[in-house]
Amino acid sequence: MLSPCSPPMTQSERPLPPGSTIGILGGGQLGRMLALAAARLGMKTHIYCPDPQSPAFDVTPLKTVAAYDDEGALALFANDVDVITYEFENVPLATAEFLARLKPLRPGATALGVAQDRLAEKAFLTINRIPVAPFAMIGTSESLAAELKEIGLPAVLKTTRLGYDGKGQRIIRKRAAAAAAFAELAPKPLVLEGFIPFEKEISVVVARGVGGDTAAFEPAENVHRDHILKTSTVPARITGRTAARAIDIAARIATALDYVGVLGVEFFVLKGGKLLVNEIAPRVHNSGHWTEAVCVTDQFEQHIRAVCGWLLGDPTRLADVVMENRSGDEIGAIPARLGPGARPQAYGKAESRAGRKMGHINRIGAKTPAK
Amino acid sequence: MLSPCSPPMTQSERPLPPGSTIGILGGGQLGRMLALAAARLGMKTHIYCPDPQSPAFDVTPLKTVAAYDDEGALALFANDVDVITYEFENVPLATAEFLARLKPLRPGATALGVAQDRLAEKAFLTINRIPVAPFAMIGTSESLAAELKEIGLPAVLKTTRLGYDGKGQRIIRKRAAAAAAFAELAPKPLVLEGFIPFEKEISVVVARGVGGDTAAFEPAENVHRDHILKTSTVPARITGRTAARAIDIAARIATALDYVGVLGVEFFVLKGGKLLVNEIAPRVHNSGHWTEAVCVTDQFEQHIRAVCGWLLGDPTRLADVVMENRSGDEIGAIPARLGPGARPQAYGKAESRAGRKMGHINRIGAKTPAK
Repeated sequence: MLSPCSPPMTQSERPLPPGSTIGILGGGQLGRMLALAAARLGMKTHIYCPDPQSPAFDVTPLKTVAAYDDEGALALFANDVDVITYEFENVPLATAEFLARLKPLRPGATALGVAQDRLAEKAFLTINRIPVAPFAMIGTSESLAAELKEIGLPAVLKTTRLGYDGKGQRIIRKRAAAAAAFAELAPKPLVLEGFIPFEKEISVVVARGVGGDTAAFEPAENVHRDHILKTSTVPARITGRTAARAIDIAARIATALDYVGVLGVEFFVLKGGKLLVNEIAPRVHNSGHWTEAVCVTDQFEQHIRAVCGWLLGDPTRLADVVMENRSGDEIGAIPARLGPGARPQAYGKAESRAGRKMGHINRIGAKTPAK
Repeated sequence: MLSPCSPPMTQSERPLPPGSTIGILGGGQLGRMLALAAARLGMKTHIYCPDPQSPAFDVTPLKTVAAYDDEGALALFANDVDVITYEFENVPLATAEFLARLKPLRPGATALGVAQDRLAEKAFLTINRIPVAPFAMIGTSESLAAELKEIGLPAVLKTTRLGYDGKGQRIIRKRAAAAAAFAELAPKPLVLEGFIPFEKEISVVVARGVGGDTAAFEPAENVHRDHILKTSTVPARITGRTAARAIDIAARIATALDYVGVLGVEFFVLKGGKLLVNEIAPRVHNSGHWTEAVCVTDQFEQHIRAVCGWLLGDPTRLADVVMENRSGDEIGAIPARLGPGARPQAYGKAESRAGRKMGHINRIGAKTPAK
């Protein structure tokens, strides 16, 4: 996957040998699955997370329980590892920048900064000619009223930061509802986005190595319920041309960010196949969990390979698959008969709560021939 | 896979819920891969191993470093876990029996006893009408001479216990060499086996659940070098009829042992497709490492499912595969380009020695249609 004209690697880009230690910020299920993948490659992990009950702690030889702004703990952590990565995009930027001065941080703080702020993300994508829904920065109730005229109804008012799984957003269907939505979300910085009638949602998980090579998994077709991912189906019911364009856009974003690691890119597919980028996530992605069941290299191994400076693995898919998230108490059903083709994964979380992601099941079918 | 007339489960056979703890005796690569599989199912592991450098310790939340005859440590270990299994067949029988009185031991001590002693194994197989090479117990140099006349040349003289990877055995090609071979291996209890000219070696990894259901992976064709497994190829180049007979024999052995867990059965394939069982291993098996790359459920998850009293998973194979073992310093090459279809696994061993298994690579190809 390295093109013949790839730039030569510098000293810091040399691949880390097996036995090296990867520092991971965040100890949730994504950190846990990254640690499992690292172990399969003979790498050690050191998980850093403030929550002593973090499920990733069960599968790592090294751990730090400390706050993300504890510079003493961060310095000790950095000293103990060879490279640092993260499982969530809300790592405080100050933390990322502090660590990046001590050890390679992959993906870098730039990607984190862009992904943490919806406005910065939209601006970055627009500058790079990546199509997104119309958007506008909203500072006052008056600017909201003005921008609603421009963008039209319905539209979505969102906080620019710390929104996930539908938190921090309000759909505005009628002009009269705008002031109430603003009052609910302000004084946080806000962005207004046009609500685009889309036919389906897809996502591409793309990896980029230190040498600039990229490798993408096939697009997944995603269904959300209450803003939380319910299923990812592969292959997505889109044309080969749409799939190729989605992969191209994802790779262009990774390259524009000078990204190292795995990046999730969510798209809206409009009538006629037009694509708009909804959002990007600088990490392994829930909509990429299917890769673990049916790909030669899965997204977790691919991320570890990239951040270790290894050449990327083969993302070839061996079978059709539907990934189903399991939340709350649904995880208790995993030991029961799951039927042929089922491959479950449970996250080892001690406490199940309604809406808390507890595991997922990949349902594997025979591979349908490419169109 | 449960037949409609399966016996009802007793209290102790109820499936363990996610979050339960599986005790594993042995901390090598098999224990490590079992712990990784357990983690994927949301189970905790407690690894017991005398070697503080055990690679499995890196991926388990709970560990005990103690000798296998330390009854105090064994009792504490048993108290901390919900079920006990093991990654190697040379667990001392006294240890197994001590633990089995405290917690369910799966597979049971009977399987361990049979597999630990070549003579007991051959006798068990013969009683159950499973074909094996001709064999005889050897107590004296005179009995060796007499049995050589019966069994013929060449023949293999083996210690009945603690032999693995070719250790503890001598091929006798000439009658004159018999006394020297006996002198080298005696006074250990010995068994003489006829050396059967085989066409190929295959193995079947079969699982049996607490309800008596069985599920087998397809046979792998194995190539050994210096008595150590070099490659396993699936599908094996055997007829469908031979494959079905091998699977049937493996399942019959598991049932005869009242086995719970994954069992490895090695066969010689003779000219014309006749099968002889070479040996059995009451654990996950090196020749089953291919399952991890291309099966819906791999041998490690299957073993965990079985010992937890879960229904067995789907062993369907999604692609063709060749598993290559990596020993000694070969593991350093893993970060390098492996080519399309390659899925590496490194065992995280701190020290590489010539002949020490350090990892393996599964090379995945498109699935060839069934004959």
